[in-house]
Amino acid sequence: MTDETATANLGSAQLGPSPEFGTRPGEITGALPSAFDAGVYFIGRLRTPWTKRSDCPKNARESEAVCTVEIDPSFVPALRNLQGTSHIWLLYWMDRSPRDLLVQVPRHYGEGRGTFALRSPARPNPIAMSAVKLLGIEGNKLAVIGLDCLDGTPLLDIKPYFASTDSLPDAVVGWHAERPANAPK
Amino acid sequence: MTDETATANLGSAQLGPSPEFGTRPGEITGALPSAFDAGVYFIGRLRTPWTKRSDCPKNARESEAVCTVEIDPSFVPALRNLQGTSHIWLLYWMDRSPRDLLVQVPRHYGEGRGTFALRSPARPNPIAMSAVKLLGIEGNKLAVIGLDCLDGTPLLDIKPYFASTDSLPDAVVGWHAERPANAPK
Repeated sequence: MTDETATANLGSAQLGPSPEFGTRPGEITGALPSAFDAGVYFIGRLRTPWTKRSDCPKNARESEAVCTVEIDPSFVPALRNLQGTSHIWLLYWMDRSPRDLLVQVPRHYGEGRGTFALRSPARPNPIAMSAVKLLGIEGNKLAVIGLDCLDGTPLLDIKPYFASTDSLPDAVVGWHAERPANAPK
Repeated sequence: MTDETATANLGSAQLGPSPEFGTRPGEITGALPSAFDAGVYFIGRLRTPWTKRSDCPKNARESEAVCTVEIDPSFVPALRNLQGTSHIWLLYWMDRSPRDLLVQVPRHYGEGRGTFALRSPARPNPIAMSAVKLLGIEGNKLAVIGLDCLDGTPLLDIKPYFASTDSLPDAVVGWHAERPANAPK
């Protein structure tokens, strides 16, 4: 489970920052474990209108763009019963993000914040999640509204959104409530 | 990225059903890809009162048990600014679940449903997520309410819960609305 070969094969693309990311003043990086503990499959891709990071909406609620979830055909049977569900969670892999940032300075905001207090794609396991509106399913394609990621982003999972456990309208993020107006998450 | 050695090293514990799981009538399994596409780090462990699957609450909202998130000390700087946040998402790895079930028959309910229409831990990438109440942080330990998983479950990520994007009180899961009373998710 902690074999150097596995690390070398799986990790090289993820371990270093991409040219799009650099460490800014105030940021703190940490040493990552020497090997991965488990592996993930990319089960499909997210098709969005955005091919550059600077084009992506800052917040998924800003965009009404209809995006497409393309799952690999072998997983189509797992979509059974999903039709008729209003919203789903998409979990996806932010494969261009550095994984060693512990404190980071968001793009539009000057103060360093802990990675676990942010929804930034840069995190030890770069798994992003978005609750999106499900418009329809046709074969291996799902039409959704509510994504903000790059075209081609690898998909990890689809889950139904259950309001009974997932919806917490009164939840408060302490530092965010105190931020300047228009600062990003 | 698609090396057989990596598969062998990372995958053996996850690829087959555990003795706790078996394929029930009506269930459909599929062939998984021959190799993993990326690797995850276990960044900590969830400490809960439940050591057997049968003891776990069926629904996280059923339990008021205070549980502990223990993160590896090297990730403590990433907790900065999290104090004062009322609810967080925990993403964790359901390492005892089979990954090849496409249609499954829930334990207390006789009808086969697609994996992506369920919150079952058995899925191609066994990543579970729970929105939990954050009671406090001390060093590398977070006290939370709202977990339903086994003691020792590996942690993948902590994210702040943002009501503005995560809370959808009117979301409806089609098949669930039509199910018999008391049937599980």
